Amino acid sequence: MAVLVKTNRRVTLKERPVGFPKDSDFALDEVEVGAPGPGEVLVKTLWVSVDPYQRGRMSQARSYAKGLELGDVITSQSLGEVVESQDGRYAPGDLVVGQLGWQDYALARAGSVRRVPEALQPPTLALHVVGTTGLTAYFGLLDVGQPKPGDTVVVSGAAGAVGQVVGQIAKLAGCHTVGIAGGPDKCTDCKLYGYDVALDYKDDDLAGQLKEACPKGVDVYFDNVGGDVSAAVHRRLNVGARIVICGQISQYNLERPDPTFAPGLLIVFRARMEGFLVSDYAHRFDEAAMRLVRWVAEGKITWREDVTEGLENAPAAFMGMLRGENRGKALVKVAERSS
Amino acid sequence: MAVLVKTNRRVTLKERPVGFPKDSDFALDEVEVGAPGPGEVLVKTLWVSVDPYQRGRMSQARSYAKGLELGDVITSQSLGEVVESQDGRYAPGDLVVGQLGWQDYALARAGSVRRVPEALQPPTLALHVVGTTGLTAYFGLLDVGQPKPGDTVVVSGAAGAVGQVVGQIAKLAGCHTVGIAGGPDKCTDCKLYGYDVALDYKDDDLAGQLKEACPKGVDVYFDNVGGDVSAAVHRRLNVGARIVICGQISQYNLERPDPTFAPGLLIVFRARMEGFLVSDYAHRFDEAAMRLVRWVAEGKITWREDVTEGLENAPAAFMGMLRGENRGKALVKVAERSS
Repeated sequence: MAVLVKTNRRVTLKERPVGFPKDSDFALDEVEVGAPGPGEVLVKTLWVSVDPYQRGRMSQARSYAKGLELGDVITSQSLGEVVESQDGRYAPGDLVVGQLGWQDYALARAGSVRRVPEALQPPTLALHVVGTTGLTAYFGLLDVGQPKPGDTVVVSGAAGAVGQVVGQIAKLAGCHTVGIAGGPDKCTDCKLYGYDVALDYKDDDLAGQLKEACPKGVDVYFDNVGGDVSAAVHRRLNVGARIVICGQISQYNLERPDPTFAPGLLIVFRARMEGFLVSDYAHRFDEAAMRLVRWVAEGKITWREDVTEGLENAPAAFMGMLRGENRGKALVKVAERSS
Repeated sequence: MAVLVKTNRRVTLKERPVGFPKDSDFALDEVEVGAPGPGEVLVKTLWVSVDPYQRGRMSQARSYAKGLELGDVITSQSLGEVVESQDGRYAPGDLVVGQLGWQDYALARAGSVRRVPEALQPPTLALHVVGTTGLTAYFGLLDVGQPKPGDTVVVSGAAGAVGQVVGQIAKLAGCHTVGIAGGPDKCTDCKLYGYDVALDYKDDDLAGQLKEACPKGVDVYFDNVGGDVSAAVHRRLNVGARIVICGQISQYNLERPDPTFAPGLLIVFRARMEGFLVSDYAHRFDEAAMRLVRWVAEGKITWREDVTEGLENAPAAFMGMLRGENRGKALVKVAERSS
């Protein structure tokens, strides 16, 4: 059998970003990929994902996952199409998602990717609402935040990939939902995402807005951003409040995170602040994905995608997302499906 | 029946402390107390307690309990002897504890005080190991901290009233126990209090000491102090760590608490930071007190008291405690038992 050598464009880490990432921190190179070995599949990338956690992987700071080395392909969940398979579970044409990186092709162990059912429309949902960000919203809100009907749930980064799902699950759970986002467009979108009230943190008086939006105080704060926005929310906690630390995007481009929180506040409110990683819930992904798929099918969860065209533009899409320029889940379209 | 008028010395709040409290923030006055009305008892104070939370009551800042007004008697758990009773539950000579304040006599509703059994020796234990600070240690460690056998439990303020009980309960629970205290004397005492290792935060290299003392990382951090000491402990957390926010004594004399913590750390370690108040566990005090009394009787919990003589010296004892000068539970002896 002839080995078809394919040219693979890859976006790699050229320099570790110092502070805010810049174009020159990334490189685009081309290498050849060969055929899959036994138990492997060759996947052609159709879509790659752009997410805040990727900033952490570019740093050397100790974190929950190993960082990238210089020259490594940028980590990413990707949606692709199997083009060659040396594993009985997959055949050419199958759609899969996996940690395949910002590149045109990836060789992967068949066990490391997951099949995307043809019934899932659009299939990019596997990269957000029924994928990692949706699962993050599900476990972060329901397991860590433990909302009760009638609770006030405040979400920062409410129009982001995770936030847009949190609001809708909180609404399904019978809560009063308050989303915080940047700018009037995103605040408009928040209404699509199940938020009863949307607050623009770029407005002067976030504290006053919060007071009005949360007349009964805050029971659950789902925090994606940290910093000043979170400090304003902390002042309105109720006794027994749960603060879910999902992300701290305001801190990711600082050389050292700011100490922004005085733990004594947790005594005053007998409150709990808890961090989590969606990967710790892997044994329950099926349970959650089943519900998310059903909510999508029933029209109970909607979403918005912010699409950038072309793998070479992934760094620009990533930097735009860090600046909050995306409206909906940031995705990069790499290629059309061939089959 | 002749009404016996008694002269009651009281320590009251003269000025709200700004920063660290000073003598002139307190006043000692004398008033007359009369006889108890129906359902009341007149209690002669034998011992009053000196605790960090009292600093909070002297401020106007919003907190979990109503603050003192100027002229009010300083809030305190006290141990006293019933001298007159208008309630069937108590007779003269009975020992009781209650929120009776820094004063020689208190009129109290009979339902607001609790009997101290004659078998409890010394009865001052009702003000600490089997009283509020012991209950605080019990619920904070076992319910909030949830230690598992073999876990490493680190306690700041380890030689303080709460810390001295936390170490011993953690040891009973099968944990590796590390106490942090100020100065060699308190570190010596820590060995009495169930700590396998005692660290002096006044030494230069607390970070290095912690690394050595916690080779397997920190699973539970019982925090009484906050500030730099806590920041050093946070750097050694394990995945799934629990941080119990019991007190933040390093912050109580600041006009505004320092933001000392970067919540993103909780993501890295999937950790939980939770504040609590012992009063929220009132429905379970009997359960806990029964165990604490048994552990004392079995010699499994020991303690140290730091006694100041004379009600008029309560402010000095309080300020000394805030400076960390007490060695053991800070108490003020007000009078001898008459019966």
